[in-house]
Amino acid sequence: MILERFKVPEKDQVLVSEDALRRTVAQIFEKLGVSKDDAAEAADVLTTTDLRGVETHGVSNMLRAYVRDYKAGKLDPRPGWRVLRESPGTAVIDAERRLGIIVGPRAMRLAIEKARAVGVGVVAVHNSGHFGAIGHYAMQAALQDMVGVCFTGAGLSVVPTFASRPLLGTNPIALAAPARHEAPMLFDAATSAIAGNKIRLAIRVASPLLPGWVSDKDGVPIMEEKPVFDRDEYYQLPLGGTREQGSHKGYGFALMAEVLSTVLSGALPTMLAAGSGSKNHFAAYDIAAFTDPERFKDTMDEMLRTLRTATPAPGQERVLYPGLSEAEELQHRRAHGIPLHKEVLQWFAECTGELGLAPLTAIR
Amino acid sequence: MILERFKVPEKDQVLVSEDALRRTVAQIFEKLGVSKDDAAEAADVLTTTDLRGVETHGVSNMLRAYVRDYKAGKLDPRPGWRVLRESPGTAVIDAERRLGIIVGPRAMRLAIEKARAVGVGVVAVHNSGHFGAIGHYAMQAALQDMVGVCFTGAGLSVVPTFASRPLLGTNPIALAAPARHEAPMLFDAATSAIAGNKIRLAIRVASPLLPGWVSDKDGVPIMEEKPVFDRDEYYQLPLGGTREQGSHKGYGFALMAEVLSTVLSGALPTMLAAGSGSKNHFAAYDIAAFTDPERFKDTMDEMLRTLRTATPAPGQERVLYPGLSEAEELQHRRAHGIPLHKEVLQWFAECTGELGLAPLTAIR
Repeated sequence: MILERFKVPEKDQVLVSEDALRRTVAQIFEKLGVSKDDAAEAADVLTTTDLRGVETHGVSNMLRAYVRDYKAGKLDPRPGWRVLRESPGTAVIDAERRLGIIVGPRAMRLAIEKARAVGVGVVAVHNSGHFGAIGHYAMQAALQDMVGVCFTGAGLSVVPTFASRPLLGTNPIALAAPARHEAPMLFDAATSAIAGNKIRLAIRVASPLLPGWVSDKDGVPIMEEKPVFDRDEYYQLPLGGTREQGSHKGYGFALMAEVLSTVLSGALPTMLAAGSGSKNHFAAYDIAAFTDPERFKDTMDEMLRTLRTATPAPGQERVLYPGLSEAEELQHRRAHGIPLHKEVLQWFAECTGELGLAPLTAIR
Repeated sequence: MILERFKVPEKDQVLVSEDALRRTVAQIFEKLGVSKDDAAEAADVLTTTDLRGVETHGVSNMLRAYVRDYKAGKLDPRPGWRVLRESPGTAVIDAERRLGIIVGPRAMRLAIEKARAVGVGVVAVHNSGHFGAIGHYAMQAALQDMVGVCFTGAGLSVVPTFASRPLLGTNPIALAAPARHEAPMLFDAATSAIAGNKIRLAIRVASPLLPGWVSDKDGVPIMEEKPVFDRDEYYQLPLGGTREQGSHKGYGFALMAEVLSTVLSGALPTMLAAGSGSKNHFAAYDIAAFTDPERFKDTMDEMLRTLRTATPAPGQERVLYPGLSEAEELQHRRAHGIPLHKEVLQWFAECTGELGLAPLTAIR
């Protein structure tokens, strides 16, 4: 459900195929020292995220940051997999500075395995790199007849209600659940008013920020629409924006994510330990342990169809549910290619040139 | 963190003691056919909720509804406890129309028991009455060195983003986690812009509704402040209010609660089955399965203290965290009494009179 204002303008678009993007991204990771399997997994997360239209967390915004962090030695391309504690339903992993989009699929597989054994599995991870769009890992569970849930604690950009400086990250929360004929539910949202990457994207496409999205440098919510030129002029606000509009709830959801990822995995939140990396919570609920999975999917279908076919309010085109436009975008982009900003393709040309790889070629 | 506008005006307040309130409430439930133990549990949930200052879910708004539902036969005072499915980490319960505030403590105890065995425990419940303030059950886990999480699916008052009529309930989400010296974190929030009971409370104290809280009867968000006289004039909006302010996130959180409570317990959401009662999801995470509980509490203390002592934004008095004002209120009300609206005390007089019980007496 990306707002129109964040889309890449058509005149600046270059289309690339899923296969070409996947291949080039995997080659880049391998050149940076990542194993073939891990590189393929990372490329899958990024490419699928772009296929879903979640451009804030796809190659455009994230890949260059990952490449930079490998080069700077902030990420370890070949770390261990240190299990700190484990029980039949739970595990805690020290990711040893492995990139989050490589940690994620593996951590969720472990949660799924535990859920298969005891009904529910929870894996908490700390000391890792960026996790990309965490909805991806929730979807792994949904594809196995489970409900997948993820929480992330990372960063220091969001000002708690009434405070004057950022003490929390945008701490996203995600849930995915399978349906039968309907596209699966896939909810993945920052607990801030808008995702941090959307500000970067807004700068790239020169789009103004709306009231209640950011505060000034004293923590006072900015309630007028204004263009943004520099990320460092503002702090982010929790979902809700102001106390009257419910920012204390967005703030509470951010803390919920922080407790379930960071504190539960024995780590320190960024407010107490700058540069301590991302922390994550992966949960899988085995539907069969709760109810008949066929009944579950039928109910999901009925519920999602009811939402999708609901009469829209005056002036609105249609009612969406979380995951619907992503599924439509995935189908469309698989067939027609993934639109990247021409500036992103230019970055690819520089990157592959520098690493001695074949360039990423566009469809048109 | 109740807004000033929702508090009972001092001139209309009557103070009652915790003991007196607890005793009278338990007696009322017993007179309605509830067992002595269940009545004590229900009285504990309601009284503690009032002690925490969560007046929307205490005796003022809820008890009269519970009494009415017992009298109308909508609630069963002596139902069974039907376990539909069970695994080492999970259980699903058919509450057989038992009042939710009696189901809740029992369901969370079972989740805690399972968490002690396999690290995490999840109990999903359907076919029950109203659950009150679900933060109460999350706190049960926190008092046992666990993290407690609850989700509720119930009702049909909230309009999904872009839709023209309500399809979801206010579906609250709660989390509680222990600290050492700081008051525990206790987050409990409707996923709507404001809790449904706050509208009832606003009517009682004649307070206007703010922009972005409700929509008109076509689903169009009302963006001006206006007084409310009748609950039936409006629909509720998801947290965020409008799409631009993030209502699709509030809507997504509501669906998250619906999936984890309703669909996972094999039930139908209210949009597909009117009058199907409340559905709940109780989760307990055994901290010791994840990390050293002492380390966990120290980190919670440091994090919560950092938030509590943060410099406030210009014009703000102080920074709160979820659970802080509730803990302060609890201490204050334990010492000085619970303020009820004089109209509520009048209801008590009628109710105890009718049931042949001693009246609830005020401190002053």
